[in-house]
Amino acid sequence: MELGMIGLGRMGGNMAQRLLVSGHRVVAYDTNQDAVAGSRSLGADGASTLEELTAQLTPPRPIWLMLPQGQPTEDTMDALAPLLQPADVILDGGNANYKDTLRRAEKLAGMGIDLVDVGTSGGIWGLSEGYTLMVGGKDEVFQRLEPIFQSLAPGPDRGYSHVGPVGAGHFVKMVHNGVEYALMEAYAEGFELMAAKEEFNLDLPRIANTWRHGSVVRSWLLDLVVSALEDDPSLSDLQAYVEDSGEGRWTVQESVDLAVPAPVITLSLLQRFRSRQAQPFGAKLLAALRNQFGGHPVRRSGDGDD
Amino acid sequence: MELGMIGLGRMGGNMAQRLLVSGHRVVAYDTNQDAVAGSRSLGADGASTLEELTAQLTPPRPIWLMLPQGQPTEDTMDALAPLLQPADVILDGGNANYKDTLRRAEKLAGMGIDLVDVGTSGGIWGLSEGYTLMVGGKDEVFQRLEPIFQSLAPGPDRGYSHVGPVGAGHFVKMVHNGVEYALMEAYAEGFELMAAKEEFNLDLPRIANTWRHGSVVRSWLLDLVVSALEDDPSLSDLQAYVEDSGEGRWTVQESVDLAVPAPVITLSLLQRFRSRQAQPFGAKLLAALRNQFGGHPVRRSGDGDD
Repeated sequence: MELGMIGLGRMGGNMAQRLLVSGHRVVAYDTNQDAVAGSRSLGADGASTLEELTAQLTPPRPIWLMLPQGQPTEDTMDALAPLLQPADVILDGGNANYKDTLRRAEKLAGMGIDLVDVGTSGGIWGLSEGYTLMVGGKDEVFQRLEPIFQSLAPGPDRGYSHVGPVGAGHFVKMVHNGVEYALMEAYAEGFELMAAKEEFNLDLPRIANTWRHGSVVRSWLLDLVVSALEDDPSLSDLQAYVEDSGEGRWTVQESVDLAVPAPVITLSLLQRFRSRQAQPFGAKLLAALRNQFGGHPVRRSGDGDD
Repeated sequence: MELGMIGLGRMGGNMAQRLLVSGHRVVAYDTNQDAVAGSRSLGADGASTLEELTAQLTPPRPIWLMLPQGQPTEDTMDALAPLLQPADVILDGGNANYKDTLRRAEKLAGMGIDLVDVGTSGGIWGLSEGYTLMVGGKDEVFQRLEPIFQSLAPGPDRGYSHVGPVGAGHFVKMVHNGVEYALMEAYAEGFELMAAKEEFNLDLPRIANTWRHGSVVRSWLLDLVVSALEDDPSLSDLQAYVEDSGEGRWTVQESVDLAVPAPVITLSLLQRFRSRQAQPFGAKLLAALRNQFGGHPVRRSGDGDD
């Protein structure tokens, strides 16, 4: 098939490459023309504007957006839509909030344009291993574009599926990432306990590697634990500072909206927030209260370990 | 090699079988003589008493205990020890608390007997896939018995390791199971959120199966999620009642002893406790308090949904 790819960053660039290897025609666009040149060198046709991109494709055109969620996706969709015609399809492979996706789908539907949301997992490993694709949208559009999904997925018969109507793809990807937060936190806590048990002097990379074979906790994330610990068993080169990129927060908000408890996913998100606080006000207040009612000593600013 | 196997339940019986297939000589004992007959039919020598078991092995004898933790393990070790002589080795493959293991090791050391604790993971799949073994004990004993570990593990070069001195094997297995609780809870919460999102009518077995290929959350536990949901997508045949078998509690206690937070592992354990409460007193008190201060309506016993 042929399709446009907008956004040639770490994800989009690799996805374009994977599509090219499978024999698809890709017209590639990015605001960074070096990225366009990179895709061109791998066999893509390049475009230096959205108009150039749409002009090089034959309707009905599938155009894949692989952009940071929020304003970049919103702005590009707004700029792209007037260049399209009925039956063209925009695929959003980014991590959009499914509520934004529902709103955008409604707007595009008024112009006869289909929005397909493709929750995409695989990170920097997707190029070689394939991407998991959770697709929301109309059934007939899914079927028409299935060769694209088959090429991006780990295999033509696995790792992609039509999970529901538009919005469902990003919803499922959001929950996927919420689960991911909690899985990561589970390993993090276990290895921290083992690191703290000094009397046993445990070899953490060896233990992680042992668990990979036959144990109940084996997983791809555990493979990455092994990789990280083999590089630096004490992780001495890292700060204990963990970012988040939104999907965990949305999962927790959804849990509140549905009144369905997701305590461990929620707490995994809160642990990330806590990791960014050097001196939280709440802990200071706890220390102050212990001092107030019991005269317990406190550490003052400037006492060291500040 | 040759070894004694005491405890021919779901785990021990399969482990004896796996050792026999690899050409080891196994002398098998269980209080249930049907289990002994079962192992005998697979090529083991049988024993109807501990005395018969020890008499059929040539010192220094490795004797593997695969028994429920607590009293059954304690009693059997106490009955076995007087039948042994210095340089014999007891291997405890059960889920003992590592503090019990340290205590038992000290007692056995006084008799010249080595205790080796083997944290064992693999459940009913271990027979075909092999068992993950986390071994604690003396280095020279580990090396002498390595052919046994190699046959039980998923391969002769993987899935087993000497993690530290006696006690370390059960400690690492305890943490392993704590991590397992939290991994399970992570998936449970994610799929519950998706089940609750009725507007998308999500096909949970299909989504779980899609995630298995290429996604960040792929794991062996996810494979089991697929298996469970394909059998019964709504899990309508099950009660929402989850047992625990001790290791999660010990992990939480260790977290308290070390003053190292393991909040998500802890909360995963508490969720299991909560699953067993039909009408918790605490929730009744919350309802009563809302009624007291705000006149909010309550549900009385007998109102239905009781």
